[in-house]
Amino acid sequence: MNKKTGRQTIILENRPRIIASAGVVGKKEGEGPLREEFDRIFTDGRMNEDSWEKAESAFQKAAIETAIEKSGRKNEEIDLLFAGDLLGQCIGTTFGIRDFGIPFAGLYGACSTMALSLAMAGVFVNSGAAKTAVAATSSHFCSAEKQFRLPLEYGGQRPPQAQWTATAAGAAVVENAEKGVAIEAVTFGKICDMGVTDANNMGAAMAPAAADTIAAHFRESGTKPTDYDVIVTGDLGAIGSKLAVELLKSEHGFDISGIHKDCGTMLFDIDAQDVNSGASGCGCSAAVVCTHFMRRLREGEIKKILFVGTGALMSTVSSQQGESIPTIAHAVVLKGGE
Amino acid sequence: MNKKTGRQTIILENRPRIIASAGVVGKKEGEGPLREEFDRIFTDGRMNEDSWEKAESAFQKAAIETAIEKSGRKNEEIDLLFAGDLLGQCIGTTFGIRDFGIPFAGLYGACSTMALSLAMAGVFVNSGAAKTAVAATSSHFCSAEKQFRLPLEYGGQRPPQAQWTATAAGAAVVENAEKGVAIEAVTFGKICDMGVTDANNMGAAMAPAAADTIAAHFRESGTKPTDYDVIVTGDLGAIGSKLAVELLKSEHGFDISGIHKDCGTMLFDIDAQDVNSGASGCGCSAAVVCTHFMRRLREGEIKKILFVGTGALMSTVSSQQGESIPTIAHAVVLKGGE
Repeated sequence: MNKKTGRQTIILENRPRIIASAGVVGKKEGEGPLREEFDRIFTDGRMNEDSWEKAESAFQKAAIETAIEKSGRKNEEIDLLFAGDLLGQCIGTTFGIRDFGIPFAGLYGACSTMALSLAMAGVFVNSGAAKTAVAATSSHFCSAEKQFRLPLEYGGQRPPQAQWTATAAGAAVVENAEKGVAIEAVTFGKICDMGVTDANNMGAAMAPAAADTIAAHFRESGTKPTDYDVIVTGDLGAIGSKLAVELLKSEHGFDISGIHKDCGTMLFDIDAQDVNSGASGCGCSAAVVCTHFMRRLREGEIKKILFVGTGALMSTVSSQQGESIPTIAHAVVLKGGE
Repeated sequence: MNKKTGRQTIILENRPRIIASAGVVGKKEGEGPLREEFDRIFTDGRMNEDSWEKAESAFQKAAIETAIEKSGRKNEEIDLLFAGDLLGQCIGTTFGIRDFGIPFAGLYGACSTMALSLAMAGVFVNSGAAKTAVAATSSHFCSAEKQFRLPLEYGGQRPPQAQWTATAAGAAVVENAEKGVAIEAVTFGKICDMGVTDANNMGAAMAPAAADTIAAHFRESGTKPTDYDVIVTGDLGAIGSKLAVELLKSEHGFDISGIHKDCGTMLFDIDAQDVNSGASGCGCSAAVVCTHFMRRLREGEIKKILFVGTGALMSTVSSQQGESIPTIAHAVVLKGGE
């Protein structure tokens, strides 16, 4: 059953397992420090498609297909697919998965989507609402720039606090099994909006949401930072990471400085690859968690992590209307070494 | 517990209850045949805001506030809010709810969102993952036209098969209780894409998805059309409704012609109010189900309905790139009279 230990936190008592996961990335991501980790590196960012949106769909499709293939399951054995992405009306997802014939529950959590979809898959499998579920998401540098910022051809300068949207996708297959990385608990976040209006500074906008959800998780689950080998945030980037760790200490009294990592600072060599404050995009944490962290958990190199996906919930329309950026973070506890 | 009776269908054995619901609408909707049903009719479609998007957020906010107030709960007692809308990055939702301080799981199901959010709330409450959950969605004629079709000022002709996006929002509060309308079962849909490319003919695009989910529900739950007083589809409109009923008979062997209703044909007086094929938009089925049907179920006038939300998952970008329209339908069984 699902056992609530607080308003936001649910302990998944049957410990549903991630029986397989996959991460696929583009060329630039495949040249970064994690290049040995990914299932596939596609050097053609266009994926032989005629638009960036269709290319993103192809990335998400490839991640899901790879994860399902590794799980030994067939599409017909998947009860429910939880997925979403950054594009308007989530077309990265819907066009990527439309041929699968898998029942689909669409999500929107911006860059928190991998954590949100894993949390959903965990709760559903844990409670018997799904036998086998898939959690997935994607992002693409070119479709995201086109939608949220400036046409690529414009060649606009990127400010130092900007993050580079990852061209990447990740997927995980979840079911009740004896082996695999367990989803032990999930914590759903609340919207935080501290008034940041700069869509080029999403790390700063998302840091308070990350700190709020991590603090709620510790409080409600009765755990503390030292219970985890790693606390990994989605994609706060260099600036947001520093802020989140500071906020968590000053506002909530938890020190995670020694065990904190951020997918946004791991995907690229920030200086050599010229990505300013690091990586962002739904696909960033999806690809990093579904490969790098999942492998280490499976092999017992690390035992327990708290994965905190962070999302900025603005649109170009809301930004153009002068609105600040509402943000959210969702967390899942992943336990390996079994 | 959640008991699966097939790949797509889950029986909610604890029968979580909708303890309160609310629907709020704009002026035109408030002049239609259901005008006596709604909790509030706002004659200022702009809601005193300076943009249509902010107005839509105000509608969704009003629906959720009204439903929570009617339930006797406080915001702090709500564990999780499931919501989404049609706008890019779901800003109708995120800006509408950001001040509530309620944990939030964002959904994207286009016009199927009320059924999707009710299904999620039902599964979570049924399994103990949430004590009290809220399901909600909204749409706004002006924000939808601006995003999906043409600037209002252009005054474009609407073809006869077009539907009129409702300016409306609905919300329901779900918890394990002794009284209230029960959510007895849910069926998650698969994406259907029959190659329709006309974004002005969404009823035809969505009809196969509605038929597919309804047929799956009958098959997996072991029920038949006569087990329901009403089978109500989200917003297929006049053309889509006819197609769905025909498809369900010819392709799946189920005759629902005598008990089928469609929120899209109920919200407006189609001829007198000049809305072509009827209403559409997430808010249409949300407002109609959360007021008209919920009241009749509560009072025992009807006992059991199958509510089938239908969504068209395209975006302007995908349509401009020549893509067809992927569609989906999710279903929930609502039982009243107790």
